[in-house]
Amino acid sequence: MDTSEIALSLDGKLIGEVLAISGFADLSTAGAGDISFFSGDGAVPETHATCLLVKASAEFAPSTPAVIIVKDPKLAFAKVAAKLSAPPRRTGIDQTAKIVVDADVKASFIGPNVVIDNSAKIGADVEIHAGCSIGRDVSIGRGTRIFPNCTIYDGVTIGEDCIIHAGCVIGADGFGFVRDGASGYVKFPQAGSVVIGNEVELGANSCVDRGALGSTEIGDGTKIDNLVQVAHNVKIGKRVVIAAQTGISGSTVIEDDCVIGGQVGMGDHARVLSGAVIGSQAGVLPGKIVRPGVWWGTPVQPLDEFKRQNALVKGLSRLKDEVKRLRSLIEDK
Amino acid sequence: MDTSEIALSLDGKLIGEVLAISGFADLSTAGAGDISFFSGDGAVPETHATCLLVKASAEFAPSTPAVIIVKDPKLAFAKVAAKLSAPPRRTGIDQTAKIVVDADVKASFIGPNVVIDNSAKIGADVEIHAGCSIGRDVSIGRGTRIFPNCTIYDGVTIGEDCIIHAGCVIGADGFGFVRDGASGYVKFPQAGSVVIGNEVELGANSCVDRGALGSTEIGDGTKIDNLVQVAHNVKIGKRVVIAAQTGISGSTVIEDDCVIGGQVGMGDHARVLSGAVIGSQAGVLPGKIVRPGVWWGTPVQPLDEFKRQNALVKGLSRLKDEVKRLRSLIEDK
Amino acid sequence: MDTSEIALSLDGKLIGEVLAISGFADLSTAGAGDISFFSGDGAVPETHATCLLVKASAEFAPSTPAVIIVKDPKLAFAKVAAKLSAPPRRTGIDQTAKIVVDADVKASFIGPNVVIDNSAKIGADVEIHAGCSIGRDVSIGRGTRIFPNCTIYDGVTIGEDCIIHAGCVIGADGFGFVRDGASGYVKFPQAGSVVIGNEVELGANSCVDRGALGSTEIGDGTKIDNLVQVAHNVKIGKRVVIAAQTGISGSTVIEDDCVIGGQVGMGDHARVLSGAVIGSQAGVLPGKIVRPGVWWGTPVQPLDEFKRQNALVKGLSRLKDEVKRLRSLIEDK
Repeated sequence: MDTSEIALSLDGKLIGEVLAISGFADLSTAGAGDISFFSGDGAVPETHATCLLVKASAEFAPSTPAVIIVKDPKLAFAKVAAKLSAPPRRTGIDQTAKIVVDADVKASFIGPNVVIDNSAKIGADVEIHAGCSIGRDVSIGRGTRIFPNCTIYDGVTIGEDCIIHAGCVIGADGFGFVRDGASGYVKFPQAGSVVIGNEVELGANSCVDRGALGSTEIGDGTKIDNLVQVAHNVKIGKRVVIAAQTGISGSTVIEDDCVIGGQVGMGDHARVLSGAVIGSQAGVLPGKIVRPGVWWGTPVQPLDEFKRQNALVKGLSRLKDEVKRLRSLIEDK
Repeated sequence: MDTSEIALSLDGKLIGEVLAISGFADLSTAGAGDISFFSGDGAVPETHATCLLVKASAEFAPSTPAVIIVKDPKLAFAKVAAKLSAPPRRTGIDQTAKIVVDADVKASFIGPNVVIDNSAKIGADVEIHAGCSIGRDVSIGRGTRIFPNCTIYDGVTIGEDCIIHAGCVIGADGFGFVRDGASGYVKFPQAGSVVIGNEVELGANSCVDRGALGSTEIGDGTKIDNLVQVAHNVKIGKRVVIAAQTGISGSTVIEDDCVIGGQVGMGDHARVLSGAVIGSQAGVLPGKIVRPGVWWGTPVQPLDEFKRQNALVKGLSRLKDEVKRLRSLIEDK
Repeated sequence: MDTSEIALSLDGKLIGEVLAISGFADLSTAGAGDISFFSGDGAVPETHATCLLVKASAEFAPSTPAVIIVKDPKLAFAKVAAKLSAPPRRTGIDQTAKIVVDADVKASFIGPNVVIDNSAKIGADVEIHAGCSIGRDVSIGRGTRIFPNCTIYDGVTIGEDCIIHAGCVIGADGFGFVRDGASGYVKFPQAGSVVIGNEVELGANSCVDRGALGSTEIGDGTKIDNLVQVAHNVKIGKRVVIAAQTGISGSTVIEDDCVIGGQVGMGDHARVLSGAVIGSQAGVLPGKIVRPGVWWGTPVQPLDEFKRQNALVKGLSRLKDEVKRLRSLIEDK
């Protein structure tokens, strides 16, 4: 790719030379042949990049060989980098993979020691890396990549172009029991399934449980970080972002385009409305409806209210002193 | 099974016809041949279920083909569903499983690529799914099922009829180090073991560390959700329920019949007395004794106290205004 | 080993007999042939240990066969136990391991179903246990042990004498996306790597993501517990201790010799200065600089301040009563 092709593909304006670009890096480490980006306004920090993606308001060194003006430099950089670094897709069915005869496997790569059970349907261009266990009647859409040592239980459906990182567990039993007097707990049936849409990313060692009755669902374009817990019958919409170690209890709904921080805990049967943003470590009570806007704390409050409340608590010492002063004024009279 | 057999098995009272039941579902999705349940009093929502489990106080449509009156409809439903959906137990020893010769294996199913090391004892009707690693001198009781890609370290004991979901790690070293001046940390010996009772369920990707000296213990009938951390020398009693992502530090004791929410953190050497209920995201300080009752917050307080405290904080703005008003009253005089 | 050799190796003073020591245990369970320790001052609880490690200020029973006076009995015990229990290193390359021909493997033990990909470099005395997947260009230093079912992605570097517990995932993509209007998210390149130093321990099912541009780094002697999340481009220094379920967001720096509790959440681009101690469940805001000292709460405050603040909140009920009393005094006038 050269700088002119890149500018064209990004609908950007090239200032400078047409030069070959072979790599990408941040400003400080970029060198000859690299493209980099600067999202800010004003002066671009020193860099040895051959090509820079910047906003119109940026002030770049005149010596920069090539500069491309774009609306969103970080987004443009992500798009270019994806083209420059697209991993060569892996191919081949390893001879140690155990594929039950009636499975329908069009995958381009099945790694060592992968197990694919009865009636599974694996689409074209799918990669399933070493040590994954794919249950019965699992369906995996075209282009999805599943990294090593994942477990996909029976009956789970995963869409196209998803990335499932190593160690994920999809479709284990939800956590549902009914107390039976002194004798303990009886398992409530966990007989539903999991349906994951297209272009979903699931971080390492995350867990998505199967529905009890009915399914657990994750919509197209949703991105989930590492060590996240998605309980039975949760419904997550499209383009939702969920950071690491967050846990979502049973039957909670997160609508499209929400952003959820890390280590958030959500009680069961809550509903997060489209466009809500929830800060890290927040707690959402069971049944709570979280409206659009930015939310913080446990239990979650609108960020402004949270800050006002926090300031009041911080001012407690002064308030106490003031009360003391008033008392002495009164008692002196 | 027919409705008459079901009523008999549940000690319930059948109103309506003797009809075959082949499936189970919730009220809204149940259809012909299905059993469903309604836990409330009063009117049952519309359903096409063939058979309904309800309390005596429920008002059901006279058109419902069969209704069974029981004390606890959800519990009754769980019991019936278990009979209707009992998964066909898997059988066979996969030829890729590596079972060291002196292991004593009576299991009914050993999946592909399972490794069973020296002197392990695996009981009858045990299922060990693909990719599990079972260490030396491990003992697994009759009827226990271990899902794919679990790691059971040397010397761990697991009882009968347990369910260990995918990705669990049982018996890794506890987290114990002693500072040795400027040079860093020396590992404190993690030479104990793990002993898990009967009918214990452990959720996906959960971890139970081995004891340092002595063992980590989990009692009969205890149910643990996904991504839970149980540290070295923790003792968990019988019929304890622990929700996802909770972490329990070293040597803490949780007595029988406690209920612990999700994302709870417990310091070391705490003691949770039998019958205590701890809300999600709560924090238990090291050494704390938590008495029976409902607890909330960090550090945990009785729920009533927590609510009172919360209301006081919420009222801070009004309190501040009142102090201001009093000041002006005083200063005006 | 006998008590005289042990005293010599610890630079301690032996009181009593020269006796053979074959095991170690805590005071209450130690028996004949065992060494145990007591860290306190004053009276040592009853024990049947053959040899005791104690401080000079301890008062031990005159009948104890051998007592060794040391400065730090717990540290001394850890050192002796390490010698007594050093696990026999495993050896042999299992025939089911799949080692790509151009990998450079000097390891002493490669377990069943391990996969080692192109150009990986595995040092001498390394153990890689069953089911691990080692990516391309991975480097693992001499003496490191990797327990079952770990996934090491392409290009990761791990130093010498590390312990990586079962289920760890090292080098998965960091969690970075750029919003592209209504169409959703574009992946920001996750093209960096992970560099782990020597004598690092990583607990079960923990995750260390690769850098986006540049690397994620963990320094020598750092000890990390189970289910911990280390995001892209985090830099953790030397001899840092991090307890279970803590999560560290992107680009955050933790300097040498910090101690971080369990379930702590750190925002991105924070900096924890050398010698800081952060209590469990604390929250560090993005960009925050945490100075040396003990920190607590969300957002983190110095412990003293946290306690003072907490006491003020606890006193709110009294403060409210006092304001009420003042009001009636004023209004009565």
